Amino acid sequence: MATFVLVHGAWHVGSAWQATIQNLESKGHRAFAPTIAGNGKGVDKRVNHAQCTQSIVDAIVAKDLRDFVLVGHSFGGTIISKVAEVIPERVRRLVFLTAFVLRDGKSLVDELPPETAAIFHQMAQSSADNTVMLPFPVFREQFINDASLEVAQKVYAELSPQPFQPLVDRLDLKKFYSLPTPKSYINCTEDIALPPGEFGWHPRMSGRLGLYRLVQMPGSHEVMYSNPAGLAEKIVEAGRD
Amino acid sequence: MATFVLVHGAWHVGSAWQATIQNLESKGHRAFAPTIAGNGKGVDKRVNHAQCTQSIVDAIVAKDLRDFVLVGHSFGGTIISKVAEVIPERVRRLVFLTAFVLRDGKSLVDELPPETAAIFHQMAQSSADNTVMLPFPVFREQFINDASLEVAQKVYAELSPQPFQPLVDRLDLKKFYSLPTPKSYINCTEDIALPPGEFGWHPRMSGRLGLYRLVQMPGSHEVMYSNPAGLAEKIVEAGRD
Amino acid sequence: MATFVLVHGAWHVGSAWQATIQNLESKGHRAFAPTIAGNGKGVDKRVNHAQCTQSIVDAIVAKDLRDFVLVGHSFGGTIISKVAEVIPERVRRLVFLTAFVLRDGKSLVDELPPETAAIFHQMAQSSADNTVMLPFPVFREQFINDASLEVAQKVYAELSPQPFQPLVDRLDLKKFYSLPTPKSYINCTEDIALPPGEFGWHPRMSGRLGLYRLVQMPGSHEVMYSNPAGLAEKIVEAGRD
Repeated sequence: MATFVLVHGAWHVGSAWQATIQNLESKGHRAFAPTIAGNGKGVDKRVNHAQCTQSIVDAIVAKDLRDFVLVGHSFGGTIISKVAEVIPERVRRLVFLTAFVLRDGKSLVDELPPETAAIFHQMAQSSADNTVMLPFPVFREQFINDASLEVAQKVYAELSPQPFQPLVDRLDLKKFYSLPTPKSYINCTEDIALPPGEFGWHPRMSGRLGLYRLVQMPGSHEVMYSNPAGLAEKIVEAGRD
Repeated sequence: MATFVLVHGAWHVGSAWQATIQNLESKGHRAFAPTIAGNGKGVDKRVNHAQCTQSIVDAIVAKDLRDFVLVGHSFGGTIISKVAEVIPERVRRLVFLTAFVLRDGKSLVDELPPETAAIFHQMAQSSADNTVMLPFPVFREQFINDASLEVAQKVYAELSPQPFQPLVDRLDLKKFYSLPTPKSYINCTEDIALPPGEFGWHPRMSGRLGLYRLVQMPGSHEVMYSNPAGLAEKIVEAGRD
Repeated sequence: MATFVLVHGAWHVGSAWQATIQNLESKGHRAFAPTIAGNGKGVDKRVNHAQCTQSIVDAIVAKDLRDFVLVGHSFGGTIISKVAEVIPERVRRLVFLTAFVLRDGKSLVDELPPETAAIFHQMAQSSADNTVMLPFPVFREQFINDASLEVAQKVYAELSPQPFQPLVDRLDLKKFYSLPTPKSYINCTEDIALPPGEFGWHPRMSGRLGLYRLVQMPGSHEVMYSNPAGLAEKIVEAGRD
């Protein structure tokens, strides 16, 4: 049975994976979901990408986890890429779940459609603490389009403003792109958090991984809420040797 | 429970939705499927797009339907866009089912691959009444590829020549593009009535909606015949708040 | 009930279809899976594309098969295109299963991403017998990504080096492109043997067929191993009138 470390995306915290972890555990696996520094309600939002990465490395080392599958969702894809650079000997496989795979020297915001990037910059500047937030209609239609309104509202209430600095930090990913660690990409076929086509998740992000395994499933960007049982199955499929 | 108004596509009439309506009603919803002016066997084919739109508005007003989800299939997408301009206060949400979303100032034929547009122009000119018809092999392979030959033949026998004028009328859609009405797009993943890629339905048409909800389902362009139960589920998913 | 002739892809032999044939037969159909000349372990690898085609024509004529659906997988798509030119009167429909559809005057290698083509040329030159082979990690991640490691290893052990000459022979396909034979394309949605997008299977290959029927199914390039029951259903759907 396998060990999974699950890294959430922007606006979320580790508990986003609660139902997914239950499903993985019911299949006999172990799964851990640390929260990225600066994420969550009432925490200090003044973090950069290096600090975010370090917080996940620290959580892994504190539990002395080894030989695990490292899963990153959305923004979490940028975190697992850097975590794998720091502790490659502990990572059995990287799984990008509808996640950003940044080009060397680029930031997450560099990958967004220009209009979206401009809105994010404006939101961060207007905020008191250099954070960005999703308006509910955008979250409901573009991020969690496969759930009921009730689920969408419940999940939205759990979100908190996302530190902007980690989204604009440009990442040196030369080591990541030289790692022999096996890689998988899970694409959710109704995910329009990035607009399909020129700026879409797949094959734009997945294709940057070089040799990789593609796994697909129905669902939106928030499939850990709308279909955690199906997601757990796909994480196992993506994570096996 | 919701109310749905279902607007058919070219060559069809309202009864195309019969099985879909039964499935919606069995879930406790109400659904109505008026026939667009000029469509059907033995009717006057001399209609333009404005008259088509007015015929649907009239059917809605005659029944005094309010707070409904307005669904348009294929050519019906051009009709619901204009209906929403006339009676926006009655429309809770627009659902484009593998439908045309025209750019402001364009016609449906402007969105077709040039070779198809040329064939349609030629067919209309050769016809006695400025109509176009699908040859059976094209309908069977490109429109209803997921059904048996028997179903394909039965559905084809129900079709009638499509007035061409509504397909070449260029539409002023400035009001449509300013409406705050929520919008969904249902994409059928095996629909090749428009060729996938540069001229495909999704994300070419869906992406024009601005903020929209994507719903996908397996099936061809004629999914109301090949899978009405599945379609009813997806219409509910696309139409909910 | 229908008759199917199943033509395997590169590195494979006819027995690749064993489980698919069992599933077709259990539905009452007949299915035959000849091996292409030069394919298999311990056989003479010095063949060109014309000899490959002739070997399948010979197998069909020897059994006097008529009115059959001719299915080609991957490289097998180039074979069925030429077989249909030789014995069009025997072929009821062509089914391309995640297969190459070559442009007139082009070779299979002409359709590969340039880097892949260069690797293949180098492998063939380095080989003793002008053959190419897939490294296991590439086969496991890009070709059979939907199977367990055990299945992947078992299938890989059945593979044998692929003669390179049939992959570089440029084919005159003028007659193929003039044949009125109905055509279907089965696309496997997780198939990344060709990278999705510019060099992908669908709609790049399928779109060259002119009027064609699209059928899709979940699965990798090796779906005859990972899901033979599902494949048999889709072959029936693709092959019916």
